[in-house]
Amino acid sequence: MEAARECLAMIGETSQQALAQQLDAAAEAFRQWSRLQPADRAPLLARIAAALEQAGPRLVALADEETSLGHARLETELVRTVFQLRLFAQEVTRGIYLEAIIDRAEPAWPMGPRPDVRRMLEPLGPVVVFAASNFPLAFGVAGGDSASALAAGCSVVVKAHPGHPRLSEAIADVVQGALRSGGAPEGLFGVISGTEAGRAAIVDPRIKAGAFTGSLNAGRALFDLATGRPDPIPFFGELSSVNPVFVTKAAAERRGPAVVSEFVASFTAGAGQLCTKPGILMVPASAKLVDQLPRAVPSNPTALLNDRIQTSYTNAVQELCEAAGVHVLVNGDHAARRPSPTLLRTTSAELLGNPQGLVREMFGPAALVVEYEEESELLAVARAIDGQLTASIQGEDDDAIADALVRLLAAKAGRVLWNQWPTGVSVTYAQQHGGPYPATTAPSTTSVGTQAISRFLRPVAYQNMPEHLLPPALRDANPLGIAQRIS
Amino acid sequence: MEAARECLAMIGETSQQALAQQLDAAAEAFRQWSRLQPADRAPLLARIAAALEQAGPRLVALADEETSLGHARLETELVRTVFQLRLFAQEVTRGIYLEAIIDRAEPAWPMGPRPDVRRMLEPLGPVVVFAASNFPLAFGVAGGDSASALAAGCSVVVKAHPGHPRLSEAIADVVQGALRSGGAPEGLFGVISGTEAGRAAIVDPRIKAGAFTGSLNAGRALFDLATGRPDPIPFFGELSSVNPVFVTKAAAERRGPAVVSEFVASFTAGAGQLCTKPGILMVPASAKLVDQLPRAVPSNPTALLNDRIQTSYTNAVQELCEAAGVHVLVNGDHAARRPSPTLLRTTSAELLGNPQGLVREMFGPAALVVEYEEESELLAVARAIDGQLTASIQGEDDDAIADALVRLLAAKAGRVLWNQWPTGVSVTYAQQHGGPYPATTAPSTTSVGTQAISRFLRPVAYQNMPEHLLPPALRDANPLGIAQRIS
Repeated sequence: MEAARECLAMIGETSQQALAQQLDAAAEAFRQWSRLQPADRAPLLARIAAALEQAGPRLVALADEETSLGHARLETELVRTVFQLRLFAQEVTRGIYLEAIIDRAEPAWPMGPRPDVRRMLEPLGPVVVFAASNFPLAFGVAGGDSASALAAGCSVVVKAHPGHPRLSEAIADVVQGALRSGGAPEGLFGVISGTEAGRAAIVDPRIKAGAFTGSLNAGRALFDLATGRPDPIPFFGELSSVNPVFVTKAAAERRGPAVVSEFVASFTAGAGQLCTKPGILMVPASAKLVDQLPRAVPSNPTALLNDRIQTSYTNAVQELCEAAGVHVLVNGDHAARRPSPTLLRTTSAELLGNPQGLVREMFGPAALVVEYEEESELLAVARAIDGQLTASIQGEDDDAIADALVRLLAAKAGRVLWNQWPTGVSVTYAQQHGGPYPATTAPSTTSVGTQAISRFLRPVAYQNMPEHLLPPALRDANPLGIAQRIS
Repeated sequence: MEAARECLAMIGETSQQALAQQLDAAAEAFRQWSRLQPADRAPLLARIAAALEQAGPRLVALADEETSLGHARLETELVRTVFQLRLFAQEVTRGIYLEAIIDRAEPAWPMGPRPDVRRMLEPLGPVVVFAASNFPLAFGVAGGDSASALAAGCSVVVKAHPGHPRLSEAIADVVQGALRSGGAPEGLFGVISGTEAGRAAIVDPRIKAGAFTGSLNAGRALFDLATGRPDPIPFFGELSSVNPVFVTKAAAERRGPAVVSEFVASFTAGAGQLCTKPGILMVPASAKLVDQLPRAVPSNPTALLNDRIQTSYTNAVQELCEAAGVHVLVNGDHAARRPSPTLLRTTSAELLGNPQGLVREMFGPAALVVEYEEESELLAVARAIDGQLTASIQGEDDDAIADALVRLLAAKAGRVLWNQWPTGVSVTYAQQHGGPYPATTAPSTTSVGTQAISRFLRPVAYQNMPEHLLPPALRDANPLGIAQRIS
């Protein structure tokens, strides 16, 4: 990370003046970009995807130097980054996302004659994206938030993460080159750096929405700025999640060893630096999985992303270690920049007595194993937890408790899994990466999957508008050939 | 209003203890109500509609006593109140609003094997609704916010508006009677009163969203409470709008008298106490419509809703009268509880020099006529205004400026009208009653029309879930017979 720090100092913080210029350019670019039809924006997204693919080896090498995440993982991430741009390009071309609704004039409408009203979704305006540290490609400068905002028709200013400054700059160059060669408006996509520049951007009147993936504290601070503006704006923050896994008695008895090994693989993936890391494993005491777990946990150390993450991780593990009723099951070195995995252990009775203290994110290779006596305690814990990105069940099809548990977890989490593990979030149409606070600041939205695009849209209705003045998506002639809901 | 005040004192403010009981009941009712299938909730909405219809004459009489809005207007409002409940019942039964998306497992998915992921919208939780003063029926205790939250599957606690306490209580009785007779869970629908109870409700952990129609100051205060919670929640506030109308030169020349008379009818409707009242009329100086306007404005007084609205109205008109460049065109009595209409006058040059000062809501029978020289000034004003619920154009099909004006206004307003007037908001599928701040606190949502239901929903994805544990809307067998997007 020495090289990274040097480079960050070299790039420096974006000055007030440079930020103002970027925001002016983003506002002007928005006026042009937002007026293009979706099918005319899509080729630019595809062009960015192709350029990133071409620069892939160089970007992966840079990313590995700055994040230590390893080539294999970063290559997968590059595939995802490129794929989501292409998928979003397809999705906007298809046009379902515009939600075009056409109510023709209806004199016999029961509440009184209905005028011709037509509604569709239109882009919000320039967006500031706060890039994540843990997915330097897929949630970095050209990651999911940037891709979905561009796809929606917004201009984007990305606040680069200081953990990978050279990579951020390299990605910005690739994206800007692709956009320029494709004839996109200048200023459509800009990158800024520095905490102060980020704070200034989120409160700037030219910015109409913010998107963020990162820590609870940083995300909450930005959310407070966005909602505290004289003109509050939407802020889509993905903040914190423990992603509990509930193992039923039958599953533990029939598949104990598989549950143990799969859990260990999931909570240690990416050195535990995944938003969907399973941080709590609820197991029946009777199955004695705690006897198997220590052997399954690897003792080799893996590097954390940066100093700040290490400090947070060390503190979080230390606090949980010291909490009443918590014992160490696997004594990893949690105070190192390259920690080995740690497993802690408690009971559901202890957890239910102090949920705020014990249900806490440890961003790194650590998890808490919670033993229960009766399966009804699974329901009690499901009721006690806060909002989550994911909640998973390891169960058997004939588990009597399954239905109640699924319903309780659906009320708390954005995604509920059955006999799979939450890490490895697929980019699909139905994906939901979100959840009630503190998982996110906007429970009705997702930051992964094609529905992520809709965060950056707002509905506009046109009443009694002549055909030639209507947006093409709402015309009777339907020149875009999209789905229109016509009443 | 003497009777009203007496009754308010009689009902009193909801005590802390009574509030806590209601919120407990709402939380318990939510658990039951949210698990019903949409088609099982719909009959309860229809039952409320029928009960309101039956009690209609009594409710209208009470509403007229407490609001002075007049039988004719209140009867129309009752029709709307009943209709929207029935429309929402139909809409949820149809099931499109669930946005069911099914991604079956796909080993060849380009970013890596895709698991089975299925996503739908589910109810948020207990909701607090702050009823409006100006639509005692359609946005009162059983108005659009309550109807859409119930339709979504949420339980509702309504903070009644103090302007019509006896009506609020009567409506609550009708709704609760209908729900009881239909077998709805106890506590599904409650009513509270008092500012303190409302503030306590919006910060209570049991409440998961708020909806509000009212003033900028009150709405902003509640928004700040909702977003300042330890666990922020969505707050859908409809606050303030000036609803400018842009008259092109051609329209003024060809249809001047009609524009004048229709504008006057629209800005004086409901004593000017409509959220969509056209508060600004931009007219070409050359057409001299200001000469026709005074004769068209009625001099008869109409009662305002309550003392607080009168104070705000008097102050707003007074401040605008005293602003530089503003002159009185029709000198109504704006300091009375029963004011006669006031028309003020300025130029677009003055407005552009002080948009914050001159573009202001006056909630009552007053408007500002703005004369312009060149049509390009219409574009300049469109650029200068803040977020609006509506913006309207009176134009001719061959107006060269129309396209640019429509695009600019679509970026500022939730609804853009052509040759119609913004008052009289139809409840339809495509209706959009919302807009960027300060029109609302949530630009991606509407409080009128069937899309209002989606405010109270959040997406949940199910991964690898066996058919019998999936919600019916996501099952392969599709027992609800709803639209599913299957990839």
